[in-house]
Amino acid sequence: MSSIKTPNNLPDHMSGHIPTDMSGQIPDHIKGQLIEVVTEKRYLDRKEELACYAYDAFLVESMPQAVIFPETPEEVSQILKIASLHKIPVTGRGAGTSVCGAPVPVRHGIVLCFSKMDKIIEVNTRDRYIIVEPGVINADVQKALAPFGFFYPPDPGSMATATIGGNIAQNAGGPRCLKYGVTMDYVLGMEVVLATGEMVTFGSKNVKDVTGYKLSSLFCGSEGTLGLVTRAILRVVPQPEAIKTLMVTFKNLDDTANAVSDIIGSGILPAAMELMDKFTLNAIEDSFGLGLDREAEGSLLIEIDGVKEACEKEMGRITDKLRENNALHIQESASDADREKLWTARRSAYGVFAKMAPDIISEDVTVPVSCVPEMIRQIKRIGKSHGLRVGVLAHAGDGNMHPMIPADKSNAEEWARVEKAFDEIFAAAADLGGTLSGEHGIGLAKARYLPLVMNKDSINLMTRIKQAIDPQGILNPGKFV
Amino acid sequence: MSSIKTPNNLPDHMSGHIPTDMSGQIPDHIKGQLIEVVTEKRYLDRKEELACYAYDAFLVESMPQAVIFPETPEEVSQILKIASLHKIPVTGRGAGTSVCGAPVPVRHGIVLCFSKMDKIIEVNTRDRYIIVEPGVINADVQKALAPFGFFYPPDPGSMATATIGGNIAQNAGGPRCLKYGVTMDYVLGMEVVLATGEMVTFGSKNVKDVTGYKLSSLFCGSEGTLGLVTRAILRVVPQPEAIKTLMVTFKNLDDTANAVSDIIGSGILPAAMELMDKFTLNAIEDSFGLGLDREAEGSLLIEIDGVKEACEKEMGRITDKLRENNALHIQESASDADREKLWTARRSAYGVFAKMAPDIISEDVTVPVSCVPEMIRQIKRIGKSHGLRVGVLAHAGDGNMHPMIPADKSNAEEWARVEKAFDEIFAAAADLGGTLSGEHGIGLAKARYLPLVMNKDSINLMTRIKQAIDPQGILNPGKFV
Repeated sequence: MSSIKTPNNLPDHMSGHIPTDMSGQIPDHIKGQLIEVVTEKRYLDRKEELACYAYDAFLVESMPQAVIFPETPEEVSQILKIASLHKIPVTGRGAGTSVCGAPVPVRHGIVLCFSKMDKIIEVNTRDRYIIVEPGVINADVQKALAPFGFFYPPDPGSMATATIGGNIAQNAGGPRCLKYGVTMDYVLGMEVVLATGEMVTFGSKNVKDVTGYKLSSLFCGSEGTLGLVTRAILRVVPQPEAIKTLMVTFKNLDDTANAVSDIIGSGILPAAMELMDKFTLNAIEDSFGLGLDREAEGSLLIEIDGVKEACEKEMGRITDKLRENNALHIQESASDADREKLWTARRSAYGVFAKMAPDIISEDVTVPVSCVPEMIRQIKRIGKSHGLRVGVLAHAGDGNMHPMIPADKSNAEEWARVEKAFDEIFAAAADLGGTLSGEHGIGLAKARYLPLVMNKDSINLMTRIKQAIDPQGILNPGKFV
Repeated sequence: MSSIKTPNNLPDHMSGHIPTDMSGQIPDHIKGQLIEVVTEKRYLDRKEELACYAYDAFLVESMPQAVIFPETPEEVSQILKIASLHKIPVTGRGAGTSVCGAPVPVRHGIVLCFSKMDKIIEVNTRDRYIIVEPGVINADVQKALAPFGFFYPPDPGSMATATIGGNIAQNAGGPRCLKYGVTMDYVLGMEVVLATGEMVTFGSKNVKDVTGYKLSSLFCGSEGTLGLVTRAILRVVPQPEAIKTLMVTFKNLDDTANAVSDIIGSGILPAAMELMDKFTLNAIEDSFGLGLDREAEGSLLIEIDGVKEACEKEMGRITDKLRENNALHIQESASDADREKLWTARRSAYGVFAKMAPDIISEDVTVPVSCVPEMIRQIKRIGKSHGLRVGVLAHAGDGNMHPMIPADKSNAEEWARVEKAFDEIFAAAADLGGTLSGEHGIGLAKARYLPLVMNKDSINLMTRIKQAIDPQGILNPGKFV
């Protein structure tokens, strides 16, 4: 991705008050005020420095005019006051691992990068919370908790580099969210700086808290359009006593999907249940050589955790369901190292696909779990009808599917087919009672599909909330609201 | 509660645009329009009919001018359009079991009672959801799910009569929310009518859904100030294979509270862990004669559920922690009937206290669980210093405590002491990092304490959101926002 370009077909409802041509320099007197807040060292505006902050893992780029690295909530507040006064767009950024374009500054202005606000402020496993700054990496939260026998459940594929601030902005999920829930379920409280520079706090260290509107839930998944999180209180949970991991293969994809639906329908709740089709399995095998069965049309990576005896009993029940659905091969991980290898492979699927073509589009439709078999058939049919390769990777237990299409964006004809295919995939998901995103968010990637799942008044309500909280529309303008 | 009176000391920030004198009749031409929507049979405005809708279980009464019983979302929309046009306050009402004054129409106007919208629309245990109208009673949701081996976890004390609409409005909790979470954690989607009459929908049938702002979470616990829920999609979960219940007594309250903190701190998560002090235990024993130890200063009702073998193992661990904290007597329920008896007694605590004096105030402070011992000491000390009887009942595992004071509101001197005591209890909770409500909500009861836990800008943010969604301020005016 070397060319710097601005998206040109934003949906109609992405209006706002921001002048669209902000691609020049920030005027010197404003730059001076900003540098006074953060010093020159933490203010970038040379083109070659800015380029790294023009994109995420989605395929749109747009240059910021300045990148600023705040170190305290007070600095964030001062920057936002200045930006507010001069109506300069401000887009928050963690590690830039978003796959929907959320941190791409499509209206230019300032990118506020939280990499220097990366302190873990308090670990309290007795009261089951951890307090962190937004730039703390998800994996570092896990490392801080491990010695106490605790963990933080949300585990997006990018957890090795993604920040908690970004996880909150996107309400990130991950494989084990099947059992444990997504980011929103773990944010007890937060400190936020609003567009006006006001510093507000919501929630508390208390698991149960119904004091006023549930604003931390509103801000979770708001993609930096309502405020910027400067501190978060996260709920943490004890590590399970035992973990068991199965790798299972099937002759056909229908059996694979039916097994998922049967296991969930029977009342068992694994920690994770990851589905991979033949295309994905082979792509992973090419890179990792784990000895997976290249002929299998479908596979499941299933994990159960909890009290040891319960895991054993539930694994037995799961195995029965797998056999009823004609599983070819059921292999339990013999060791932690084995298990780790399987998960590393699974988490690398995105990277593996990225090697196949100049570009890779990873989408994120979700349907009720009983519709997983039908949705997979639809994805395959749609891909085929447009002459595209489609890999299916799914957090199948909660109906969250990632169809992945490797393609070349510079090939306009092919790209038109890719876009057509995704239009049809989202329409099919909506027809099945599904939705546009399980965990990636809307960002730039899917704003145009919102009317498939929300009526006009519902979309309008989001706009009213946005305008009430950010009346000048300076926070991450040009996105889904 | 026979006298009809309006509260006279509402907090300063409870302003809004509604004329305060709405205590007369609704003008005939408006009444005519409303009756055209719902027919005369579902429109009440005779004083003796209205009186039943002037209060909840909190100690404030205020008469509505009319009570209307809608049967469809479209009727709710039409009523709100009329109310909006004429700036008539509208307060939603379920079963009126709120203990914080949430459904009390302090600015009069219309009470919209959802008792006729009580249909269960779909039960789908394969995809783990149930779709209901707002007037469906919590216990009826449980009854509809039981034959499929599923249940709906939120279990407020009032579940036998409280409606799902009210549960959502208050973000209701209950004992088993320790393990399972509160109402918000189970609302997947909703249909809402806004003050303007617009019908909007948020969320979906999908467990994972990050499509736009998480509006269903914002509306959960908004106490009818943002919109009226006309349909809800609730997540449901499989019944556990086994349940084990312990009744434990202690010589002193410190040991009781320390046992709770130790069990949670060690990583075990029971389904429920209910603490009762001597005063509460004796009040229950007076009514139920269960043979509880009247000399015990503290007691715990602990429940574990899950796979049978896991329950047994965890019960062993819990018993060790109880012994380390000098438990006097540990008794496991021998049968479902025994268990049911204990829970009936526990759930009746509020009613038992209500017999002790003309009035009963049940509060709802929450602190981090390690602060439970200290908070209980403070509650006892504060009660004593004001010469009041205080019972402590707590969902102790999540730090959610219900101090209960039986008193006589008509005794002005005593009542002043009660109010002073609660002022001090809330201040003490805030000092310990706690909050004002774990599950009852703010309503009228606690709006004046909000500044203890939220700064001015945070409270102001709630007001901005309220004004954006309900610009005329007709929905449940005079409450916390």
